[in-house]
Amino acid sequence: MKFSTIADKIQITTASSLATDPGHDPEIAGVAAVDQASTGTLSYIEGDKFAAFVAKTQASALILPQNPAMQAQATERGMAWLSTPDPRLAFARAIALFYTPYQPGPGIHPSAVIDPTAVCGEQVSIGANAVIQAGVKLGAGVCVHPNVVIYPEVQVGDRTVLHANCVIHERAQIGADCAIHSGAVIGAEGFGFVPTAQGWEKMEQSGIVVIEDGVRIGSNTTIDRPAVGTTRIGRGTKLDNLVHIAHGCQVGEGVVMAAQVGMAGGVIVGNRVILAGQVGIANQAKIGDGAIATAKTGIHSDVAPGETVAGSPALPYKVFLKASAVYRRLPDIYKTFQQLQKRLP
Amino acid sequence: MKFSTIADKIQITTASSLATDPGHDPEIAGVAAVDQASTGTLSYIEGDKFAAFVAKTQASALILPQNPAMQAQATERGMAWLSTPDPRLAFARAIALFYTPYQPGPGIHPSAVIDPTAVCGEQVSIGANAVIQAGVKLGAGVCVHPNVVIYPEVQVGDRTVLHANCVIHERAQIGADCAIHSGAVIGAEGFGFVPTAQGWEKMEQSGIVVIEDGVRIGSNTTIDRPAVGTTRIGRGTKLDNLVHIAHGCQVGEGVVMAAQVGMAGGVIVGNRVILAGQVGIANQAKIGDGAIATAKTGIHSDVAPGETVAGSPALPYKVFLKASAVYRRLPDIYKTFQQLQKRLP
Amino acid sequence: MKFSTIADKIQITTASSLATDPGHDPEIAGVAAVDQASTGTLSYIEGDKFAAFVAKTQASALILPQNPAMQAQATERGMAWLSTPDPRLAFARAIALFYTPYQPGPGIHPSAVIDPTAVCGEQVSIGANAVIQAGVKLGAGVCVHPNVVIYPEVQVGDRTVLHANCVIHERAQIGADCAIHSGAVIGAEGFGFVPTAQGWEKMEQSGIVVIEDGVRIGSNTTIDRPAVGTTRIGRGTKLDNLVHIAHGCQVGEGVVMAAQVGMAGGVIVGNRVILAGQVGIANQAKIGDGAIATAKTGIHSDVAPGETVAGSPALPYKVFLKASAVYRRLPDIYKTFQQLQKRLP
Repeated sequence: MKFSTIADKIQITTASSLATDPGHDPEIAGVAAVDQASTGTLSYIEGDKFAAFVAKTQASALILPQNPAMQAQATERGMAWLSTPDPRLAFARAIALFYTPYQPGPGIHPSAVIDPTAVCGEQVSIGANAVIQAGVKLGAGVCVHPNVVIYPEVQVGDRTVLHANCVIHERAQIGADCAIHSGAVIGAEGFGFVPTAQGWEKMEQSGIVVIEDGVRIGSNTTIDRPAVGTTRIGRGTKLDNLVHIAHGCQVGEGVVMAAQVGMAGGVIVGNRVILAGQVGIANQAKIGDGAIATAKTGIHSDVAPGETVAGSPALPYKVFLKASAVYRRLPDIYKTFQQLQKRLP
Repeated sequence: MKFSTIADKIQITTASSLATDPGHDPEIAGVAAVDQASTGTLSYIEGDKFAAFVAKTQASALILPQNPAMQAQATERGMAWLSTPDPRLAFARAIALFYTPYQPGPGIHPSAVIDPTAVCGEQVSIGANAVIQAGVKLGAGVCVHPNVVIYPEVQVGDRTVLHANCVIHERAQIGADCAIHSGAVIGAEGFGFVPTAQGWEKMEQSGIVVIEDGVRIGSNTTIDRPAVGTTRIGRGTKLDNLVHIAHGCQVGEGVVMAAQVGMAGGVIVGNRVILAGQVGIANQAKIGDGAIATAKTGIHSDVAPGETVAGSPALPYKVFLKASAVYRRLPDIYKTFQQLQKRLP
Repeated sequence: MKFSTIADKIQITTASSLATDPGHDPEIAGVAAVDQASTGTLSYIEGDKFAAFVAKTQASALILPQNPAMQAQATERGMAWLSTPDPRLAFARAIALFYTPYQPGPGIHPSAVIDPTAVCGEQVSIGANAVIQAGVKLGAGVCVHPNVVIYPEVQVGDRTVLHANCVIHERAQIGADCAIHSGAVIGAEGFGFVPTAQGWEKMEQSGIVVIEDGVRIGSNTTIDRPAVGTTRIGRGTKLDNLVHIAHGCQVGEGVVMAAQVGMAGGVIVGNRVILAGQVGIANQAKIGDGAIATAKTGIHSDVAPGETVAGSPALPYKVFLKASAVYRRLPDIYKTFQQLQKRLP
């Protein structure tokens, strides 16, 4: 595919420039990381860490940020390039031009075990040894990979993909255009036990999990149903692998959670919140819209909308940066302090 | 069901009051969270965070703490109520009056693959595509959900439930009345490698995992078998999702571990210990009976019985509270300290 | 087996002594932990924590460190013993003399679903309900346990074992002599989303996961494929359970990661690095050869070869030890500081 065709197709509507010399419109055979690119591939540059690769990469074309120095350098090295405020987005769209994700076609494998009361929409794909129980409803174009188990009365919206060996528990409602990755467990009973003199008494978990449209659930992530009501994951939210969402959490729309984030029961997460890896959130805490928690943050109380927090217990990010900078110097500071004490009368 | 009938059935034997006006004994159709309750439902109030809902909830009846102000308010709003020192326990029992958990009836699905040397007790339920290998013994009333794999020589006690896609490895012994949730892996070989000049040499894990009666293992939790001897989870212990118990750990009775707790090899956990989310415990550490670790605590050495710890490395909880309060003020304190230094001769 | 035979077979080639009194060469029936050993068993002593057991154990023979006092004590108590600089390695080899790990023999279970284009090497073992899709190539002696799912075009090297319910995604390349434990998910699409005004836009993950020879992947561990290029795990590396390796990470040879370690995208880990439990590493960080991170370390930037780090954000280990020692005394230090302030004019 000609580089100019790629530039057209990726529809970067924000201001961008294209090296348009017609004799300089290379044929692009694929995409590659900038440090691994070879002749005939397209790559991209994002962030200072990769700027040096403009001078070294073997790529034939580059997607650049709006940086005249890089553009000049690329031109000088004989590379075609386009420039955009968001090279990563442009590169994402370029990948999609060269890559067709694997997805089995419609059809039901004869080894799948499907309860006669289950209802399958048009064009569903159900893989080998999948088990679909009573009262399940699958929308049109749903893809159930092999060895998935769906407990009774689950609903799955159109075009949602359930990867191998994930488990959807009873009565969960999953929206359209979701991806549930391998080994994820959705809707299992929440961790509800009440202390008594005779030990921990189980609180039955009669609620359900609701996952809205366009949600992505990572591999081996777990989302539990609550004692009453719902655990909800809002539209367009993306969860990475090994995340834990406890019973009764309410997660907003467009939220991103990196791997190994965990939240206790009843946490409320606003829209467009970003939680980095291994963040933990305590019972009932409320995280405002647009808040950000950096990796490993331990949140024990509410976080205001738009706030960025870090540390455990969580502090405002700027306070954390300063406090941790003092922390690493504590041994020296304490020594100075002791000397100062001695000098006093 | 009449509210008075519910009050009878939940057998709150501790002091409780019931609004007994016979004309004020509403028909209750279900249970609900206090912020989502509608007419005809029963809810409960626990803790200060929810106290304000007595004035707002649409529930027809409430389980209240022993708080005269709340009781008066509920009466004034025309709600039936009972009061008890433990509203959450009472509500747990009320849920159970309205909810029948899904459990498949006895029977063996024809697609299950069961070794002829396996022994199944009376009334077992074995789901589609489950695989049960040589020498396995399942007690009476055991429920094996679809796609579970049980390796050879495993024993499972009466009435234990194995949820979909969990895996029980060779020779594990699981007690009666346990629940193993989806995707959990019990009895896989522990992480035993010895450094040599040629790389990491494997230490075979010849031991077994023993899980006593009444234990709950969460989804995608892993419990490994040791090189020699046992990894043991004591009676009535409850583990949440994504917990990791390494080879050779000895976990006591009535312990609770929240999600994503991890413990290294040979840790000894006493009875009735409570570990909050994402706690980590280092090799061989010993946690005394009744100890508590707050979320994200990193335990590197022994914890005394009854002690509460926090932070990483773990400190006594009160010390941690004070130290972290100073920590967040470190930037200011350090500035003051520097000014003070300058004022000295 | 005679103790002297064991001593011969475990091939401890470094200096060792054996209590060779021919009348003192007990018959050993098995191996055991030193605190659980009974007559007729062999055990070992490693580290100060277990030294006291030389005086108490019921073992008939011991593998000791090169400690004359322990040796004298063992002799006095009538135990046979050998001594070596590495008792744990010797014990590992002794276990292997008494223990045959479970492994099903060659053969393909009739319930396995194998695409006709898949190629199986000699002596493969494929368990019940395993699903092997188009274009998969399994080397000689590969063992696929029940309910494993292998997506299309995957390659698996000779003698590699895939435990029950693990999932290998499309195009992954797994080397020889690897062990992938139950529930692990290898090669699922990485967590790639680009923010846009319309929400998170997916970046297709067109790359692959490559796992070199002799790698061990723990239960429920997840390793994702990248947008372009490879995610690589080097030869002889050992990962524990519930580890997360994000898209594009490059992990070297002979690395060890304990349970619940997580790394964000594009992290580069050198050879022979050791990461203790629950360590987290941020995007693109580079960890030099032989570096060590203690449990719960949060790494946000590069770590030099050979360095040991701790804390979050990570500090050199010695700095962390001193800083955390001051931290726990901060409440008292601050009180002293305030008193001192008052004394100043």
